[in-house]
Order: sequence, then C-alpha cells, then structure tokens
Amino acid sequence: MPISIETRFAFHLPAPTDVLLQFEVAAIPEQTILSSETRLGDSEHCARVPARDHIGERIWIRAEGDFEVDYRARVDLNRQLDTLEDMAALAPHELPGEAVEYLFDSRYCPADDFQSFVEAQFAGTTGGARVAAIRDWIAEHFTYTPGSSTTETGAAETFISRKGICRDYAHVLVTLARASTIPARYVACFAPGVQPPDFHAIAEVFLADPSRADGGTWQLVDATGMADPAETVKIGVGRDAADVSFLTSFGPNDFRSSSVSVKKE
Amino acid sequence: MPISIETRFAFHLPAPTDVLLQFEVAAIPEQTILSSETRLGDSEHCARVPARDHIGERIWIRAEGDFEVDYRARVDLNRQLDTLEDMAALAPHELPGEAVEYLFDSRYCPADDFQSFVEAQFAGTTGGARVAAIRDWIAEHFTYTPGSSTTETGAAETFISRKGICRDYAHVLVTLARASTIPARYVACFAPGVQPPDFHAIAEVFLADPSRADGGTWQLVDATGMADPAETVKIGVGRDAADVSFLTSFGPNDFRSSSVSVKKE
Amino acid sequence: MPISIETRFAFHLPAPTDVLLQFEVAAIPEQTILSSETRLGDSEHCARVPARDHIGERIWIRAEGDFEVDYRARVDLNRQLDTLEDMAALAPHELPGEAVEYLFDSRYCPADDFQSFVEAQFAGTTGGARVAAIRDWIAEHFTYTPGSSTTETGAAETFISRKGICRDYAHVLVTLARASTIPARYVACFAPGVQPPDFHAIAEVFLADPSRADGGTWQLVDATGMADPAETVKIGVGRDAADVSFLTSFGPNDFRSSSVSVKKE
Amino acid sequence: MPISIETRFAFHLPAPTDVLLQFEVAAIPEQTILSSETRLGDSEHCARVPARDHIGERIWIRAEGDFEVDYRARVDLNRQLDTLEDMAALAPHELPGEAVEYLFDSRYCPADDFQSFVEAQFAGTTGGARVAAIRDWIAEHFTYTPGSSTTETGAAETFISRKGICRDYAHVLVTLARASTIPARYVACFAPGVQPPDFHAIAEVFLADPSRADGGTWQLVDATGMADPAETVKIGVGRDAADVSFLTSFGPNDFRSSSVSVKKE
Repeated sequence: MPISIETRFAFHLPAPTDVLLQFEVAAIPEQTILSSETRLGDSEHCARVPARDHIGERIWIRAEGDFEVDYRARVDLNRQLDTLEDMAALAPHELPGEAVEYLFDSRYCPADDFQSFVEAQFAGTTGGARVAAIRDWIAEHFTYTPGSSTTETGAAETFISRKGICRDYAHVLVTLARASTIPARYVACFAPGVQPPDFHAIAEVFLADPSRADGGTWQLVDATGMADPAETVKIGVGRDAADVSFLTSFGPNDFRSSSVSVKKE
Repeated sequence: MPISIETRFAFHLPAPTDVLLQFEVAAIPEQTILSSETRLGDSEHCARVPARDHIGERIWIRAEGDFEVDYRARVDLNRQLDTLEDMAALAPHELPGEAVEYLFDSRYCPADDFQSFVEAQFAGTTGGARVAAIRDWIAEHFTYTPGSSTTETGAAETFISRKGICRDYAHVLVTLARASTIPARYVACFAPGVQPPDFHAIAEVFLADPSRADGGTWQLVDATGMADPAETVKIGVGRDAADVSFLTSFGPNDFRSSSVSVKKE
Repeated sequence: MPISIETRFAFHLPAPTDVLLQFEVAAIPEQTILSSETRLGDSEHCARVPARDHIGERIWIRAEGDFEVDYRARVDLNRQLDTLEDMAALAPHELPGEAVEYLFDSRYCPADDFQSFVEAQFAGTTGGARVAAIRDWIAEHFTYTPGSSTTETGAAETFISRKGICRDYAHVLVTLARASTIPARYVACFAPGVQPPDFHAIAEVFLADPSRADGGTWQLVDATGMADPAETVKIGVGRDAADVSFLTSFGPNDFRSSSVSVKKE
Repeated sequence: MPISIETRFAFHLPAPTDVLLQFEVAAIPEQTILSSETRLGDSEHCARVPARDHIGERIWIRAEGDFEVDYRARVDLNRQLDTLEDMAALAPHELPGEAVEYLFDSRYCPADDFQSFVEAQFAGTTGGARVAAIRDWIAEHFTYTPGSSTTETGAAETFISRKGICRDYAHVLVTLARASTIPARYVACFAPGVQPPDFHAIAEVFLADPSRADGGTWQLVDATGMADPAETVKIGVGRDAADVSFLTSFGPNDFRSSSVSVKKE
C-alpha cells in the first residue's frame, strides 16, 4: 500500500543567499521510492550533498528573489517492525561506533542532567520496555500545544512546561532515552496521521537485534501518537532538530507558505 | 622532530560499569605514529570502535574496581600548515556533506544566537582572516582561569563571563566561526606548550583549499595561544566537548589521578 | 508644560479570573497629577494595593468575559534632573537599606556573571560616567528590533543577540549597572517620544546626592534614546520586568487590543 | 525552651573591599532574643541597614586583610504554628500589597514555567494542602546531595536533576508554590536539626489567617525535613537566595572557615 506525498513551499530571498534544503524522501533500503519529482525555482548554484548517516540528501541552493519548491513522491515501505516492549538494549560496550555519539548530549537534548530522573521514574524497565515507558509517560503528561514553543526551545524547557509540538515531544524522548544509555536520534519524516498536515518529527532508538551484523537496529517511536512507524516515511536524521531542518537559510529569508499532504493510497 | 607523549590515569569503579575512553593519538595521514604502547587494566569486556569522522578510536571497557590506563607514543607530524589569514572561506553551497553539520548548533555551541554579534564585531573580514580576528579577540578579552567553569559550561556563559579554560576558549571560537558560516569543530589533542600539562582542546575550521578533492581543508586554531598547530597531536574531534571526552563513565566512577607529559624530542 | 496620557486596552476572560493591573501614573512628589480618570469594566472584586517601593498602585480585579480599561491623565513633571556624567557613585557601604537589593541578581538580570565584562569594557569610569558609558555602549551595539524577543528573554540572551525592544535594553542596562555595584531598577513609564506609541520601559540608577537625607537619588536612563528623562512619567518600578507588568493574569486571558497616546500639551 | 546559637566565620580581603553580612537572628515579634553578642573584626567603615521586609539587619563593612565574625545568641520562639494542611489560600485579589511580589518570578525561581506541571501533579489540592503536597513530593523525589549544585543553580536545574541542598529544596518549593498562585519566599535561618550543622534555608508561604489584619500569615515549610518550624530561628527573607546571603563580597574575598552550632537548651 504505497504512500503518496506532496509538499510545496515558497520563500523570498531579498538578496543572493545560500539556503540548505532537506525535504525529499530518503533513498534507503526500508523505503522504496516508486516515483518522485522535485521542482526547484531558479538558482545561481545548486548542489546535492549526502545528509547525516547517509540517510537522504541535502540540497544547497544559492538564489535571490522568489523561490518555490514543489515535490511529490510515491513510496512503498518495507520497514522491519519489532515489538518495542520485547526488544533488549545493547550494553554500552556492545554499541557500534556509529551509534555511540547518539548517547551524547546535543543542542536541544541535555541528557546527562536527566539521569537521576529516569532511574527513579522508570526503575525496573530496560531496553525497549524502558523506551515504551518513556513514550507513554510523555503521552500522558504532556499536552500537544501548537504555539507554545519556538525553534529555540529545548528538552529541558519542554520537560518543565509539559507542552509542545512534535519537535518538542521528540526532543524529550531522545533526551530520556539517552539518559537511560540508549542511543537515540531525531527523525524528520512524513506520516499520514499528522494533524494538521505538516512535516513531522519523531524519535528513533537503537536496540538489540541479533540478526544484524552490528548487533542492533533503529526503531521509530512517536510520543505524540500521531505517526504509525509502519507508515512513517523518513526524510533525514540527526542528533536533534539542529541537524535536520527542511529549510536553513544563511541570510534573510521571508517564508511565504507551505503545504504538506501525505496519503495512503 | 618527533613528539613524545606519556599519559597515565586511574579511576575506581565501585560496581561493574561501562566506560568509554578516547586518549590515544589518532592514526591519520597528517601524523605518523612512530611507536605507541597502550596498557589497560583488567576488564570484563574491551572493544574498539572508530571515533567521529574516522579520526581516532574509542575504547569501550566494562570493568569493576581499580582501573589504570598507561599510554605512551612517539609521533611525527607532517601537517599541511597554511597561513590562516590568507585562506578564503568556501561559500556554503560549496561545502561537502561532511562539513555541513559543523555549521549547526551543538550542545555547548549555540552559534545561531551570535550572528548579529559576529557581523558587527568582525565586519570586513571573511574566511581565515575572520577566524584569525575571532581568535585574537578571544585572546585579548578572555582570561584563562582554571576553576572558573565546569563540564556544564557552554559558550554562551563563557562569552559573558570572559573566563575559562581551553575547553571554553575552543567552544567560543567554534561558536563564533559557525555564526560566521564557517564550519568549525572541537579537537581533543596533546600539545607540548600546555601549562599545566594536561589533555588540551582547541578548534579546527574548514577553509578553502583548491588543491583538495573536496575543495577544503581543516585548520587548527588555538585561542589560548598555548598550542602551536605545527606541534599539536590530534586525539579526536567532535561538534563540541560533549563528543570527545577522554573518559565517559556510564555509572559511578571515582576519578583518582592523571598525568600528561608532551615533549619535543 | 503638562503631558497628557490616554490608554485603552481590552481583554477577554473565558472564566472568572484574577487579574493584576498596573497602568496608572504613580502619585509621587516628582510628578503632579493634574487630572486623571480610570474606567474599569465590571468585576466581581476590585481592590487597590500599594506597588513596589510605594511607587504607584496595583489594581486587583476578579472578572469574567470582556473587560476594558480606559485611562486618561494630565501630569506636570518636576523631576530633579542632574547631569549623569557628573554624578558620583555611593560606596556600597553608604547605600541605604532600600537600595541594597537593587544590587542583587533578579529574574532577567543575572548581574554577577557580568563583573569581568564591565571591569574590562568600562575600565576607568565610575558612578554616573560609568552608567552613561554603559548606556552609550548599548545604544551603539544593539539594534531595536520588535519581534526579536519574548516575555521570557533575559539580559544574558539580549547581550548575546544584540537585539531587542525597550524591555530588553532596560534589562541589559540594569544588569551592567548592578555588575558595576551601582543599584539599578526597572521603570515602567509613559514617554512622548516612544515609536510606535506604547507602554515604555527604562532603567533607573541610584547615585550620590549629598543634598538628600539618604545620600542618594534615583536617575532615569534610557538606552533606547527614545525617552527624555525630563518628560518620562513613571507608572511603577521593580527589579526587572517580572515585577511591573501592566497586566498579569492568573488564568487564561485573551488579549484583544491596546492603544497608548502620550503628548506634550 | 531557648535555642542557643553560635557561629564563627573568617575570610581574607586582599584589598580594601565592601562586604555585606547578614547572619544575626532577626528581631521580630515571633522570636525573642534573650541575649546576643556580635564581634566583628576591624573595619574602615561599618553600617547597619534594615533588611528585606524589615526582617533582620544587614551589616556593611569595608575592610582589608583578615576578618573574623563571632556571633552568639539565645532565642525564645513564640511562633504561631498552624496546621499547614488545614489552612486556606487567599484568592489573589485578597492579597496585601507586600505579598504580591512573592507571586512573581525571581532569579532562581522561574515560577511561570511550572504552571502546567503544578496543575496536573497537584490537582485537587489548594492552599496549605497544596503546599504540603508540594513539600512531600519534593521530599519523596529529590535526594539531598551536598556538592551536586553551585551558587548558580536555579529551581529549573534542580527540578530536572532531582538533587541538591537546602537552598535548592527551598527554591523548588518556592517556585511550585508561586506557580500555584501562593506567595512564597526564601528564609535564611538557624535550626537545631540541620546535618551537617550550617546556615540553613527553607521556604515560607503566605496563607489565609482571618485573625490577622491583612488576612494572612507566613508559614515556614521545609522540604528537606531537617528543620522543625517550631524551632527555626529566622535570619532574613528574600525572593530567593540572591537576596539573603550571609556574606556578599563586592571584590575578591578568600573564604577561610566557618562553623555553626544550634542547640536546644
């Protein structure tokens, strides 16, 4: 059952400006791109570079004036879905090099400070059961509140305010997982159930999978409850939102409009 | 003229604990390891994983009780040294994928917030001249003050307090370079001139080098003035100090002692 | 030459809610209220309490539904105006009890952290000349930028971003004065030159005045340059913006509109 | 049953420096000072000023070199002790002017950010029962950990780390009470049960007392459980620790030693 995605966004650059875009479905084994079409406005320069962990690509443009992005894709998902609660954690010393830095603090995820909290609040759970307990605790105690946070808000503020949007939910989940010594990263994605329809963000944790060469597998987890991992289409990953924005402008940029549509066919 | 390095440190683990170590000279083209010897205490498990950007290795151990690390190495440096002031910046859209995320905010380097400051303070400079101006500004306005900061201190606090140690100087330089759209990373290293002798930290910036395949080269910069890039031996790199600690313990750890000696032969 | 003030603002309380208001000209010796008229919407309860330092009054209301405030006043100012640059500071041990706590850190003014900065940046100045130097430094290095800050922004963030509105300029001035061991407070006021017309905020510092019983006098200082101390009408004072809001709601409140007009007759 | 207090502390001032001291038992109706003796080292200047809310005094000294403070007092307590759980809150609009600003955010107590948390966590409680619930929640979830915090630590960090000392426990209690629209202040005090013996800090909340002229009364609350309100001797009060330090130095100060002894006779 393919998922069809359409997004369009427009902005205005008052002067020649470098802009970094990352909005396309990542070409990775777990998601087959049946078709896709990317239309970009006119630019002086345009270059593609691989994105973090070789998941997806970033597009550099240098342009001026009005700029519009128009993208559509059809994707088949064949993601391995395990039962989170049944999955074990890897001991830290079993983690592959690529997963190690997802244990560390990042801009919006100061995990170290939360060690006492997670030990007390989620005592008795480990691995996937710990992650599920964290996800359920966030879902129960936080209120999804558009407008309550900004692009500067980090997991510490959200943990206190108990309010936020998908970005904030993902940051708190990533933070509490790392504080539990479970590697966790931030995933920009498309998902059909998101209301209002928009780019979405969820978390991904690295848990044991004896069938894999490196001993582990990344599993998607959404504390907002809006995205079903089976139907979530990845754009890119990062340590937190600082790493995966769909638009980063290195100079003034007047954002004009955006629309996102994600549908199961 | 080889550089000889000796370091020894000891800690006590009250219970079986995972510990991540990164203290050895990185085996990379610009530094030739003439000889080296690593002695680790007894451990239940011991594994090596590649470190960030494939610069150096991290060692996982799982151990209990007293643990001692004893390391010595002789290294020849053949680093390409350019004149910082003469180097141009790459335009953002010319940056290779690996360098891109060194533009982004990280745990201790909230670069975005400093854009107005760098534009006003360092107006008229670009590229290597901008980095040199940042380095000199820090050297002039900050006081090297052991004890004035903690492992929680970030570049924003240091920018205000105007005090810190090598870690803090590097964080501010990295932050102001990124705010200038110049990729910058944090480098853990050994260097002969450091007083008191200890592990050292400096910054590294990515500037244009037409002779390289990816168009750019990383250049070491030390705002403390203690380390000469020609004599600096790299251990590892990261987005900031959150990524490259010589010892990270995933459980209680009583640190006992450490000594570092770095000499030109 | 009297100053005439008109302000009107309206809000909607979806449920019975306590609201604290402070918007009237303070009845203090330096400003003579020629006439004034306060019209408040209907409320279940309404009480007046003295405001901080006995400058002005706060009005408690408990109300529900639409609420409108309509206020007009004519005021004559007879404030003692000294030349800031000529005024000496009091030594800390000469400060009266009331002024002492205006040396301490408050919510948005973490003055302690700025001691090294002020010593280096404003070396060679003391007392009123120090305050004038701080005011001029802010005016030169900061950009008045509506929308760049929120009600959560403190002086540390503004010092870094170099952007803000009157509230932020006042916070930075208060912070740097306190870091210089000069008592400083935050003043909510009306002033004719403010563009766009709105409630205004400036700083006030306590400097030596041998003619006064307690040895000192408060002097208004506006780093935005918009308000002339000779024409500034005080509403209230506090340690920072946390203490003097024109409207504080202890429950949901939909703010609807406000207008402020301040004119020299 | 009088309480006898002895404290001695010493410091060294490398240059002539202003120092603010507040370490003596406050002369207020609820505590009768049977005898007291204050011995201060030699100073160039020495002045007493009333402290905040007219509770206790601050002593300004200007001195150089070694300085020693030696203080002893015998105190009888006749504090009105009500059962916290039985006390009602005053509605905000019933609060006297002096209590109002103890609702506002202060340096270490960012209460506004905690409104959603207190509403959810302590739903169904009001007034003294709310305060008792907050006190018990802190006592259950936090670990008294000397060395885990610094003089820069605020209630937000402590709320996350779940660790601290008396100062941190008091800050969290004050913050959560204010977030519940209950005025709360920080109290520096002496108390017999404190281990290790030292200056102590607890919180005080303003609750309804129909027998009082202003409708309310301040009640001591100690989330650490170490100080019995019946045996707690007040030194001074403030919005948080920024306001009531036993020693604030306006210049370099090498602290040498201190001892505190508090005994029931």
